[in-house]
Amino acid sequence: MFDSITIVGVGLISGSFSLALKEKRLAKNVIGISRTEASIKKALELGLIDESLPLKEAVEKSDLIYVAIPVDATVTVMREIMDMITDKQIVADAGSTKNVLCKSLADHPMRKRFVATHPMWGTEYSGPEAAVRDAFVGRSCVICEKEKSDKDAVETMENVYKQLGMHLVYMDADAHDVHAAYVSHISHITSFALANTVLEKEKEENAIFELAGGGFASTVRLAKSSPAMWAPVFMQNRENVLDVLNEHISQLRKFKSCLEKENYEYLWELMENANKIKRIIV
Amino acid sequence: MFDSITIVGVGLISGSFSLALKEKRLAKNVIGISRTEASIKKALELGLIDESLPLKEAVEKSDLIYVAIPVDATVTVMREIMDMITDKQIVADAGSTKNVLCKSLADHPMRKRFVATHPMWGTEYSGPEAAVRDAFVGRSCVICEKEKSDKDAVETMENVYKQLGMHLVYMDADAHDVHAAYVSHISHITSFALANTVLEKEKEENAIFELAGGGFASTVRLAKSSPAMWAPVFMQNRENVLDVLNEHISQLRKFKSCLEKENYEYLWELMENANKIKRIIV
Repeated sequence: MFDSITIVGVGLISGSFSLALKEKRLAKNVIGISRTEASIKKALELGLIDESLPLKEAVEKSDLIYVAIPVDATVTVMREIMDMITDKQIVADAGSTKNVLCKSLADHPMRKRFVATHPMWGTEYSGPEAAVRDAFVGRSCVICEKEKSDKDAVETMENVYKQLGMHLVYMDADAHDVHAAYVSHISHITSFALANTVLEKEKEENAIFELAGGGFASTVRLAKSSPAMWAPVFMQNRENVLDVLNEHISQLRKFKSCLEKENYEYLWELMENANKIKRIIV
Repeated sequence: MFDSITIVGVGLISGSFSLALKEKRLAKNVIGISRTEASIKKALELGLIDESLPLKEAVEKSDLIYVAIPVDATVTVMREIMDMITDKQIVADAGSTKNVLCKSLADHPMRKRFVATHPMWGTEYSGPEAAVRDAFVGRSCVICEKEKSDKDAVETMENVYKQLGMHLVYMDADAHDVHAAYVSHISHITSFALANTVLEKEKEENAIFELAGGGFASTVRLAKSSPAMWAPVFMQNRENVLDVLNEHISQLRKFKSCLEKENYEYLWELMENANKIKRIIV
């Protein structure tokens, strides 16, 4: 049980993390950090945090500092935080990319107090109002470069995520970023692009509104996601994302070619192959 | 209230339609038609249908014949059925394309007894087991070429769909197929292609299984859809689908170009534009 933790960022992930820790009685006091005064006010109102302090004071008071802000800002803020801590404290992040951050902290004298984590949960919403109870339950949490963190720090974070109902997966930062490109980042890009496709081509918006069913809503919902959060993810992981995006465009071209050539058999084959995803996504 | 109706196909749509009609006490007896004996057996077990008969006998006994099978088979079977009916009976379909079917029936002497409908609801599952209670509620149902059907036939179908909780939208078959390409068919293609992308690139399937979160599941779930149902839809609507698919590939290329050139501003702009979908999909 932590006496005090700091969450840097008071949004979807950090807010849900705080709610879960409070519910499991894992944290007595939660300090919130945000550049946006309105977010702090909202987070206090919603009970996501107990107080807000300047970063230095917050870090001093905290057993755990949990960073969940855009991954570009994370790199900068994380170095500041790591410069402030003692070897009794733990720092963890929740970012969707791991390579850039881990590299940037590789030589930091306090590296061992940092645990690189990625709880694989989220929604298309952001800000303090997006925080929900019972987030994370049943989902995976990736821990990267476990061997570069102190044993007690890793065990503490493992324990926290397990109590939140997550199962743990271990990999190095490179592997994480490759996998994340496949199972998360590309989904966001296809969804953003699909929204732009429909918005571009369909001028009679009422017709979309009237007709759009559950299938469309499901494939396009990630297009509501925050550019502030996701643009830095795509940029930090651009090589992997480009690989998957190229493959995806080439898969779409196969469908295009089937339709152009009225190649019914190959179309069927492509769809039957796609059905194999049933084995993976129940 | 119908004394007897026939559903041609005993799957997701027809089965859910039958369940809804029975619950609303709109049909006393439901006759099921399927080429697959096992499906008939299952549909009887699940209470989707009360009996099964050869097509001719079924049609003779029915006030309404409701066709919900793949859109290519629909064209053939529908002509057979239309040749069997009297001007006291009503025939309707639930297909995802409207142009080819409406054209094929344009000169049929019983055209006025046919109502072209498309209830905009579905899931990625198929077969009798996929039928669910309370399908259709709150969704749109398109009625095409209303003016080519007898008034009593249209009013009956309007009444049925309204009692199922749907709101009605009217358009011609061309417009329907254009809109359906935007808000339904393209979502299926992107989802099939995304599944193939991930299956192609990601050889360590366990890693997908472990990490895939809600976002991935949501964008890829339509890839579980039946090729038997969807390949004919894409083929019948190939010109519209190709238009939208070309636009979608070009939207994806914009993301690709942003990443290649590290054009952060344009990437942000694309994502911000996609966020406008919030206005349409709540």
